[in-house]
Amino acid sequence: MQQALRLAAKGLYTTTPNPRVGCVIVKDGAVIGEGWHVRAGEPHAEVHALRMAGDAAHGATAYVTLEPCSHHGRTPPCADALVQAGVARVVAAMTDPNPQVAGRGLARLAAAGIETASGILEAEARELNVGFISRMLRGRPWTRIKLAASLDGRIALNDGQSKWITGSAARADVQRWRARSCAMLTSAETVLADDARLTVRDFAVERQPLRVVVDSRLRTPADAALLQTKGVLIAAAVDGPQRAALEATGAEVVLLPGADARVDLMALLDLLGSRGINELTVEAGGVLAGGLLQAGLADELLLYQAPVLIGQGRAMADFALTDLVQRYAPRVIERRSVGDDLRWTLRFTDPAQAFRA
Amino acid sequence: MQQALRLAAKGLYTTTPNPRVGCVIVKDGAVIGEGWHVRAGEPHAEVHALRMAGDAAHGATAYVTLEPCSHHGRTPPCADALVQAGVARVVAAMTDPNPQVAGRGLARLAAAGIETASGILEAEARELNVGFISRMLRGRPWTRIKLAASLDGRIALNDGQSKWITGSAARADVQRWRARSCAMLTSAETVLADDARLTVRDFAVERQPLRVVVDSRLRTPADAALLQTKGVLIAAAVDGPQRAALEATGAEVVLLPGADARVDLMALLDLLGSRGINELTVEAGGVLAGGLLQAGLADELLLYQAPVLIGQGRAMADFALTDLVQRYAPRVIERRSVGDDLRWTLRFTDPAQAFRA
Repeated sequence: MQQALRLAAKGLYTTTPNPRVGCVIVKDGAVIGEGWHVRAGEPHAEVHALRMAGDAAHGATAYVTLEPCSHHGRTPPCADALVQAGVARVVAAMTDPNPQVAGRGLARLAAAGIETASGILEAEARELNVGFISRMLRGRPWTRIKLAASLDGRIALNDGQSKWITGSAARADVQRWRARSCAMLTSAETVLADDARLTVRDFAVERQPLRVVVDSRLRTPADAALLQTKGVLIAAAVDGPQRAALEATGAEVVLLPGADARVDLMALLDLLGSRGINELTVEAGGVLAGGLLQAGLADELLLYQAPVLIGQGRAMADFALTDLVQRYAPRVIERRSVGDDLRWTLRFTDPAQAFRA
Repeated sequence: MQQALRLAAKGLYTTTPNPRVGCVIVKDGAVIGEGWHVRAGEPHAEVHALRMAGDAAHGATAYVTLEPCSHHGRTPPCADALVQAGVARVVAAMTDPNPQVAGRGLARLAAAGIETASGILEAEARELNVGFISRMLRGRPWTRIKLAASLDGRIALNDGQSKWITGSAARADVQRWRARSCAMLTSAETVLADDARLTVRDFAVERQPLRVVVDSRLRTPADAALLQTKGVLIAAAVDGPQRAALEATGAEVVLLPGADARVDLMALLDLLGSRGINELTVEAGGVLAGGLLQAGLADELLLYQAPVLIGQGRAMADFALTDLVQRYAPRVIERRSVGDDLRWTLRFTDPAQAFRA
């Protein structure tokens, strides 16, 4: 199963909106087939592994990181393929996260006389598809806020200068998180300040993440760098004459009015969920970060902290407490040095709790 | 020498204003005497060790963490005592930091026919007496700013609430830094907000640090908790009628006017140096921290970082940059978990560079 998980991870940057899945087929103690799901519309991991195993699959054990599917999607059900290949045993790391269908794949196998098991290295398997599981169970993406800040909690000087607080190693690391994300979320304020593309640079990727801009009053300029690459969704709270110019760039504009003439963030995440967005990474300023936190929509904080002091400047997260007991105390998942900076992985949501079916 | 350094460290909380010094006397591969300096006015480390060794010191080697003194202070010169005891060899970790006297102790020993050496584990020895060396060479204390902040760089809510951002383990750790400090530095603003005593609690100490308040306009209330314990110095920029009430509590008030009717921080540190303050620990807010940083007077930052987000609140260090290249980029000496918090030791001053004679 360890090997199946390693194979599954090869799909980290490509399987969207599908989950990352790996499969290893073992017979008489030897690996006779392996595969992983590469991209949506193409064969699932099990099919690749069965093709490699060929007739030898008969009587073998298949280890798969996610319960084999039992329905006809863009490809035929993997459960049927496993039955046809005559495997004797199927071990899944986890069942299908969608409670409506969970267990049906394994049941179909069992009905065909195949021995089944589930729950092997389940935590690792869930981690790999935390976004897919979130979408299946909550209807919205796993939302990760990325921030790069000084030790004194500043993401920019007051005039907006933020290039660069963290070092090149941290910025390169950010590219990998962008690459695995189905979508990037930013704000019009950040577009106006930084004019970032929010695409993956530095290494080749098959697909760029959808770029989503929270732009309540449609302030995004039609010549923003972000709009030079296709795949932009602009969420506004009020319509405006700028809409046509933005749409002329190929961007999609949606109206999601919320309180105080601001975009309804929950409605936006629900929309992204319905569009197949599993992992959403937020690269914006303190206002959007604070808004997501206060709405209870932030699942994870990826904080790159440079060992520098900036003094007066823009805050990481803009919200006001009346008492310290109200503070946000995420769980520290990891602290890791990235170049001269320190990367914190913090979670407001515990997948093991939140995603229990 | 390792053992001598361990002995020296036993004087961490007591030797002020003297340095922490340890001595081990070895003969034929066996330790025959050891000692450390306990407190000013009492025998130096060498004397304790020689007393323990007795006549056996004849022909032995003395390892001492600081060059033996050659002058009559409150006790006779240790160099003479070593000569009289007939030791054959003296190995010092470092020479006397005062360039005016450095080497005289060893020279006195050499003149008496004793073999001498210096520079063994010198970095460790210098670290142990970083404050003493600072005072000898710069005339001012080693100045350590202690801050307890959230991940987003807040030391308090805007209304002043700061109890507690960090956990109990971090607060207990702070007590040890207070105990080794000759003086604590705070601001009238912090006294008014927190009314802290700034004394060492939780464990018994022979001496409390001098408490020093930067109080430009003499706003410290005469009933402040800090004034309940003797040993308070109030530095003001302007005189005022409150002075008499403060002095009536036993506190000393000094006038050190600087620019903008604020206390001249450099003059204050010079005064503290002249009073024998080796290590100064600052527990105040962002204004004093920022002032010390901008004046180039901050040597070290001891930052306890709680993995929480506070939002709007008081900043760690209050100063304004016009360009990111001006940021303070201290050297990271250590990152260590203290309970649930992370303790950073950062240095703006490199003792190895700054203190070269």
